Amino acid sequence: MNKVVTFGEIMLRLSPPGKQRFIQAVNYDVTYGGGEANVAVSLANYGIDSCFVTKVPEHEIGQGSINHLRQYGVNTNYITRGGKRLGIYFLEIGASQRPSKVIYDRENSSIAQIRTGEFDWEKIFEGAKWFHFTGITPALGDGPTEVILEALKVAQDKKIKVSVDLNYRKNLWSSEKANQVMTKIMEYVDVIIGNEEDAEKVFGIKATGSDITSGKLSEDGYRNVARQLFERFQPELVAITLRESISASDNNWSSLIYNGEDLYRSKIYKIHIVDRVGGGDAFSAGLIYSILTEKSHSEATEFATAASCLKHSIEGDFNLMNVKEIERLLKGDASGRVQR
Amino acid sequence: MNKVVTFGEIMLRLSPPGKQRFIQAVNYDVTYGGGEANVAVSLANYGIDSCFVTKVPEHEIGQGSINHLRQYGVNTNYITRGGKRLGIYFLEIGASQRPSKVIYDRENSSIAQIRTGEFDWEKIFEGAKWFHFTGITPALGDGPTEVILEALKVAQDKKIKVSVDLNYRKNLWSSEKANQVMTKIMEYVDVIIGNEEDAEKVFGIKATGSDITSGKLSEDGYRNVARQLFERFQPELVAITLRESISASDNNWSSLIYNGEDLYRSKIYKIHIVDRVGGGDAFSAGLIYSILTEKSHSEATEFATAASCLKHSIEGDFNLMNVKEIERLLKGDASGRVQR
Amino acid sequence: MNKVVTFGEIMLRLSPPGKQRFIQAVNYDVTYGGGEANVAVSLANYGIDSCFVTKVPEHEIGQGSINHLRQYGVNTNYITRGGKRLGIYFLEIGASQRPSKVIYDRENSSIAQIRTGEFDWEKIFEGAKWFHFTGITPALGDGPTEVILEALKVAQDKKIKVSVDLNYRKNLWSSEKANQVMTKIMEYVDVIIGNEEDAEKVFGIKATGSDITSGKLSEDGYRNVARQLFERFQPELVAITLRESISASDNNWSSLIYNGEDLYRSKIYKIHIVDRVGGGDAFSAGLIYSILTEKSHSEATEFATAASCLKHSIEGDFNLMNVKEIERLLKGDASGRVQR
Amino acid sequence: MNKVVTFGEIMLRLSPPGKQRFIQAVNYDVTYGGGEANVAVSLANYGIDSCFVTKVPEHEIGQGSINHLRQYGVNTNYITRGGKRLGIYFLEIGASQRPSKVIYDRENSSIAQIRTGEFDWEKIFEGAKWFHFTGITPALGDGPTEVILEALKVAQDKKIKVSVDLNYRKNLWSSEKANQVMTKIMEYVDVIIGNEEDAEKVFGIKATGSDITSGKLSEDGYRNVARQLFERFQPELVAITLRESISASDNNWSSLIYNGEDLYRSKIYKIHIVDRVGGGDAFSAGLIYSILTEKSHSEATEFATAASCLKHSIEGDFNLMNVKEIERLLKGDASGRVQR
Amino acid sequence: MNKVVTFGEIMLRLSPPGKQRFIQAVNYDVTYGGGEANVAVSLANYGIDSCFVTKVPEHEIGQGSINHLRQYGVNTNYITRGGKRLGIYFLEIGASQRPSKVIYDRENSSIAQIRTGEFDWEKIFEGAKWFHFTGITPALGDGPTEVILEALKVAQDKKIKVSVDLNYRKNLWSSEKANQVMTKIMEYVDVIIGNEEDAEKVFGIKATGSDITSGKLSEDGYRNVARQLFERFQPELVAITLRESISASDNNWSSLIYNGEDLYRSKIYKIHIVDRVGGGDAFSAGLIYSILTEKSHSEATEFATAASCLKHSIEGDFNLMNVKEIERLLKGDASGRVQR
Amino acid sequence: MNKVVTFGEIMLRLSPPGKQRFIQAVNYDVTYGGGEANVAVSLANYGIDSCFVTKVPEHEIGQGSINHLRQYGVNTNYITRGGKRLGIYFLEIGASQRPSKVIYDRENSSIAQIRTGEFDWEKIFEGAKWFHFTGITPALGDGPTEVILEALKVAQDKKIKVSVDLNYRKNLWSSEKANQVMTKIMEYVDVIIGNEEDAEKVFGIKATGSDITSGKLSEDGYRNVARQLFERFQPELVAITLRESISASDNNWSSLIYNGEDLYRSKIYKIHIVDRVGGGDAFSAGLIYSILTEKSHSEATEFATAASCLKHSIEGDFNLMNVKEIERLLKGDASGRVQR
Repeated sequence: MNKVVTFGEIMLRLSPPGKQRFIQAVNYDVTYGGGEANVAVSLANYGIDSCFVTKVPEHEIGQGSINHLRQYGVNTNYITRGGKRLGIYFLEIGASQRPSKVIYDRENSSIAQIRTGEFDWEKIFEGAKWFHFTGITPALGDGPTEVILEALKVAQDKKIKVSVDLNYRKNLWSSEKANQVMTKIMEYVDVIIGNEEDAEKVFGIKATGSDITSGKLSEDGYRNVARQLFERFQPELVAITLRESISASDNNWSSLIYNGEDLYRSKIYKIHIVDRVGGGDAFSAGLIYSILTEKSHSEATEFATAASCLKHSIEGDFNLMNVKEIERLLKGDASGRVQR
Repeated sequence: MNKVVTFGEIMLRLSPPGKQRFIQAVNYDVTYGGGEANVAVSLANYGIDSCFVTKVPEHEIGQGSINHLRQYGVNTNYITRGGKRLGIYFLEIGASQRPSKVIYDRENSSIAQIRTGEFDWEKIFEGAKWFHFTGITPALGDGPTEVILEALKVAQDKKIKVSVDLNYRKNLWSSEKANQVMTKIMEYVDVIIGNEEDAEKVFGIKATGSDITSGKLSEDGYRNVARQLFERFQPELVAITLRESISASDNNWSSLIYNGEDLYRSKIYKIHIVDRVGGGDAFSAGLIYSILTEKSHSEATEFATAASCLKHSIEGDFNLMNVKEIERLLKGDASGRVQR
Repeated sequence: MNKVVTFGEIMLRLSPPGKQRFIQAVNYDVTYGGGEANVAVSLANYGIDSCFVTKVPEHEIGQGSINHLRQYGVNTNYITRGGKRLGIYFLEIGASQRPSKVIYDRENSSIAQIRTGEFDWEKIFEGAKWFHFTGITPALGDGPTEVILEALKVAQDKKIKVSVDLNYRKNLWSSEKANQVMTKIMEYVDVIIGNEEDAEKVFGIKATGSDITSGKLSEDGYRNVARQLFERFQPELVAITLRESISASDNNWSSLIYNGEDLYRSKIYKIHIVDRVGGGDAFSAGLIYSILTEKSHSEATEFATAASCLKHSIEGDFNLMNVKEIERLLKGDASGRVQR
Repeated sequence: MNKVVTFGEIMLRLSPPGKQRFIQAVNYDVTYGGGEANVAVSLANYGIDSCFVTKVPEHEIGQGSINHLRQYGVNTNYITRGGKRLGIYFLEIGASQRPSKVIYDRENSSIAQIRTGEFDWEKIFEGAKWFHFTGITPALGDGPTEVILEALKVAQDKKIKVSVDLNYRKNLWSSEKANQVMTKIMEYVDVIIGNEEDAEKVFGIKATGSDITSGKLSEDGYRNVARQLFERFQPELVAITLRESISASDNNWSSLIYNGEDLYRSKIYKIHIVDRVGGGDAFSAGLIYSILTEKSHSEATEFATAASCLKHSIEGDFNLMNVKEIERLLKGDASGRVQR
Repeated sequence: MNKVVTFGEIMLRLSPPGKQRFIQAVNYDVTYGGGEANVAVSLANYGIDSCFVTKVPEHEIGQGSINHLRQYGVNTNYITRGGKRLGIYFLEIGASQRPSKVIYDRENSSIAQIRTGEFDWEKIFEGAKWFHFTGITPALGDGPTEVILEALKVAQDKKIKVSVDLNYRKNLWSSEKANQVMTKIMEYVDVIIGNEEDAEKVFGIKATGSDITSGKLSEDGYRNVARQLFERFQPELVAITLRESISASDNNWSSLIYNGEDLYRSKIYKIHIVDRVGGGDAFSAGLIYSILTEKSHSEATEFATAASCLKHSIEGDFNLMNVKEIERLLKGDASGRVQR
Repeated sequence: MNKVVTFGEIMLRLSPPGKQRFIQAVNYDVTYGGGEANVAVSLANYGIDSCFVTKVPEHEIGQGSINHLRQYGVNTNYITRGGKRLGIYFLEIGASQRPSKVIYDRENSSIAQIRTGEFDWEKIFEGAKWFHFTGITPALGDGPTEVILEALKVAQDKKIKVSVDLNYRKNLWSSEKANQVMTKIMEYVDVIIGNEEDAEKVFGIKATGSDITSGKLSEDGYRNVARQLFERFQPELVAITLRESISASDNNWSSLIYNGEDLYRSKIYKIHIVDRVGGGDAFSAGLIYSILTEKSHSEATEFATAASCLKHSIEGDFNLMNVKEIERLLKGDASGRVQR
């Protein structure tokens, strides 16, 4: 079984039920999520030996996040305990013209206050083939940034493949700071993943001809973004997910992959959204799985896009689909006919 | 009041709330359903003296199925009690590209283990005008098949009209077995009802030019299927429902009826799906009601299609619409304007 | 802060959860609503000193309606207590071809039995700039009608702007009675608001070329309706909301305003409906707010339309959107992208 | 099968979930109940042909009450449809020192506005052995009182046993009016049922030595009340339920029966209360069942008391216990051990 | 109307439904609470002009706390907005031998980071008669401590009565620090309120002969504690609530008051607990109300104890009882009989 | 870390929410449980390397049981997949005099149809110190019985301690069959655990002087039962749990242990029951943990009894308490005071 390590923050996610606004809620749906944790769960669902590394407080809310991951078969043995709090994000699910809304309450979380030396990367990476994290982890602060670099050096020594999802968060850091830190990190990265706005926000590489707000994306523009990312950082692969936001209820979803030679453009899925949080993470997981199982780049784009398309139909951050279910969609059955 | 008898299995239906996957659920919505029970409830809603015949265990789960039917005015006096268990089906409601999923746990149910002689068909059919069942009932086993034949002979003697919904279930029997048993049953049948794949699965009569998985249906192909069914079994009427599955959230829904002379094609409804289980049963009930109340074949197609279109907007197996509400849609008001 | 007074009935609203039919419900969602209360809540959300005047019984169900309003910052100090009951409306939310359904149980409510002299209009209107009510209030009976006229005279003395939403309810009065009473009331009205059928039902002014049931509206027809209303009653402004009902799940929504000189036509929004009750009230509130904050008539149409478009995405009667959120949509961002 | 007819009001019951106060509730549990309907459901659970007679409006809320009764096997064929509304009662469940609270909104209900001639008592009483109603029905107004008298005359002709539960409701009528009307009705009554305060409130017959508020009841006092009731009205039987209210959570519950010769005192049950509404009705049903099945008066007291003891453990107005379950408690098993 | 000001922290309260453990919860009940906010709500329920002063963040979670207070009529006009987060407390409700559990996540809340000068105490105290806070507010940090002292000086100038509930929280500060700060604050305090362990934890004044863990409290010991508190700080009044914890489900509850001359001991209530959080705050509010309405000290003890006894039967932090309901219990009706 | 293996059936548990009867439920709470699975979860909570062995079907309902165990840290790696169904048990929670009720639907479950050779006991027991199962496993059929014997032989070879909880289930086998099979199994058993009726039902060893139905247990009788069990089977230890069932809401709970020399009697706990299912399993786990951590027999009785006392306060089959929480109760704190 392939071993994959992901590292980052897992947060308590609190959201009003259904389409309620925050202000109406008398109870919150409780789950847990975070970019790298979401990837870990997807990979566990695909049968990968998937390890998520983080730090959570010792109390029951911290334990809840671990139990939630264990439930889906993620290896949580490398998670350290301590610190004061689990980061929280409040999520209001939008509808039609009303957008979803996220309120973060993640400062001073246990993971944000880690220091180098807290994690035994030699042991964590033992037998691992892949290391994945997102741009959120270094954005949590200097401590996490240094821990990431610490981990990357060990990964490099052990010849472990490294992927990063740029995942720019304006609440956590400025574009300037992001550019500076992420540029340093890029030295270690084999696979760069981003969405339709990350490259611009982090590296100033803009997709001309697109207007994200209106949901109109120019394919040519993004081909160009992929090429520029490739040229600047010389990874093995650049992958970009393309979300055309028609409304909070309807999105078109696709991706493209560029390997320095060929550029593969996936099918475009028209999606009725149940929960779009974690869509990008589902793509990352699909891509990692595809490469680990030696799919072609063309197949990888399609698998990762189909996997993440299906994520949009599932409540919570996690993509609770298995390989067989994704392959069914890949084979063209998007009809939603009852499976008996 | 017209008396109609339906006979078959009623199951406990357990489904995760909303769009949750099985694996996420900490509670299940509880209802009951089954092809012939669903038809019985529809007919009771239309004011028919609707009798559902089955066998359920004596414990409270069995009683629950009876209470659920009684609530909607179905006559449950001919239901026998005994045996070990009520069949169960677990239903996961899909969304967008993710299909709905059914897990059956129906083996060894009380109804599957019935034997001839357990039901007093003479009494049950007293005053009845119509007998309806589906292909699921004989598929439950040899016992139920023989009981069906036992009932059919009494019905024939009493000149009661017989309708059957082919309703092929691959988990219950093979196409070969289905073909053999259903062919024998067809001798007694006045009205054959099927969906876009039943004729092929049960009798090998294929609609050329259609691809069910992609949701593209060829009208010509199905006209031809109807004709072949008519020719082979010489019933009074053949009715076929046509579901174009665009996604788990959107279907196009229509039907056609062939009486050996004329073929009537209904309006096509574009449906946002709430719950599509029982859609075909709602059609059967609409058709039976139409014929019993002496609507023309053209009107019957439209009534049955409108009735079953509305079923898709209702949670649970049962079509909880009355005649007035269906006629409102028939008169062209599909606008969904608030009724005050 | 601008003070606005609205006056009318607030009812207990009981609705089956989700898309359940009345007959399936074992619990009801509980909220409160009514045309003028809904307007008051919207205005409070926009930072207006918004006062809702009504009469509710002294028991906890009456208190519940007050608490519900207070929660959103509405001034409830002028509400009187007494009488026997709070009106109730039962609401079943429709889906696809199945329309939403309202059952009223509002007779003999405390507000329906008010008499002149019960409200101290001099004090209520102290410092107020605007008075709003709907055609429902006079329709509640002769008592309420006389109280409205009593209030209107005080408002006229104090040079307070008056708006009325025609809001015809066929269960409460006939077109004849409505025409007679509303014509008398029109003498005091500065801003007339109606939807696509009110003008015809109340004043017999029909929009030629439209078929409300089929959801097809003729823009020319409604321009003409606006002009006729303007000519007959000589207000400052006539506003008409236009709902094209495609199904219970999908509506197109827009409006037009006519000020005697220019006619402004808003953008048309394609809406996936969560809850359409209170859509018109959200428009009225948006219009009042726009005029109070001295927006142009063109801007007013757009603001009121965008505000009420967003209402359709919110559960309950109240439009829980603030000015900033509405302006985001006005600026063209209907993409529903997650706001972080 | 013994046929029993009960006649009265069934109301929509709305209660905040769990121990919430009205003012906190954002949803209400929905069920239906009323003294005579509750008795009918109990009897149906005991296998009696139990008919409930009332009048409910034609809309879905009226239908809901019928479906709710049908579910438990009550014969609803004699219920007439029409009138404007279904009576409502709001119920807040108390705990510890906080009492439960009922708010009635039952004026102008369909049943309150019935007139003589609306019910075909000849047909209703065909084959019936027992007629039961409560003091609430005549308290609804002169119409219902006259209908009761109309029914009683037919019952008398047909030699049908009549029982009445005094069930005094101070919101519906004064003690004076109750005394006057109920005295007239007593002429027809064979079995008088009351609780620890009814005899005093309706007929001024006080149990000396008891203080209901403090939960202290004097057995001697109630023996005396039973005797006085017997002497004044000369029925076959007088039954009195005795509730010692220790708190909203804990009650002691017992009864006594006097037949003019012997007085039987039941066992006293210490009850942890789930829902005490309908406790008295469960007693009435237990008593009627006992007499119909020819139990001795001693057995009848115990059966009716055990049955109604168990009611307190069930949510809703209805006593959903069958004979076997009650007999288990009668045989002394109050241990609550799991039944497997 | 008497104006009372309370000042402190309001937190988001998240608790698993029913008796679930944290680790089991997939949703949390959402409400808001905090010592001084709880007192403010009680007082508003008693008809007092009750003002709660705090600082909350500008986002919707902050707004939620304000709306929750407004709903119950608390004046929230002096609440300032800003800072980063609303404090959170997670609450698991215990049962039988399993204790309730609180996890605090309140560091860096907006209120914890206030500085002197942020509140206009002159304006806030305009017309006020009483100022109340708890020992939690100074425990939040030096900023809040200084703001308290700033407020106390203004209150002293304006001759406003000051009460403090000692409310020791070991997670917030040490006994040493508490002793030092609270001693300084005591100079301004007229009414000292504490529970069975506060005096020891804050001032080292121990009730000999009691064992809190076993639930055995020595009345003599607490009489002595009250006297020592009185002697050391010379207030007008010392009040101590006495909780005998038999289990998480059952408590005995009472209080004593000492005014330097007489010591009044309240009735002892045996309570079945629904939610004990806020019990002490309900007592404080009852005491303040009693003194403001000029009850005798003997009456005050009884009113405050009865009020807080009833709190234990209500979900959430707030005591949603009115004066009439409390007086009913005071008059001796603890029977929990249904109020109709 | 000590490794413990438990082996048996895990079932889907479906129960109406709160105190609802089966017949009222429109949804079921979903969890999973079974004697040996419950023990495994407890042990995992105590930090033991706890392995549960069973066979479950491949579909999502089977997967759900695995996820549920994984969540709490149970090692599920030795669970095999296959067969047709997961056993189900329906649970209705009782209250006061109404007992809880269990309906089993467990026939033909995957585990009931296992055969020898399906499990690799050599590997499963690698490094294990303890093997635990209950009398339910052999009662499932001859296949499971033989697999148990197969496992016991390997355990014996590896000198693994074996404990069995007699756990007699009358629905699964007769006392005769149980006696015969369990006697054979006893040869391998080191620790025998039973409740107040198992010894009689399985081995005919009766506790004289007790009446289980009335909840009265004779301590002398059970001392004698323990001695007889010890003499007949010569284990290391006999443990008996003693449940005095006062009602479905209140039980007294204690235990005794006999080691051939000394007999230890635990404290008796008065329990308000939340959910008593799994109480005995919590005792078994507490006992195994105590012995593995080398507590004295006296301490073991107390630990196991306190642990299982606390189970009664937790919803579901699993005892979600950790060692620290149990020790708190052992130290005498049963006061239920809030832990902050």
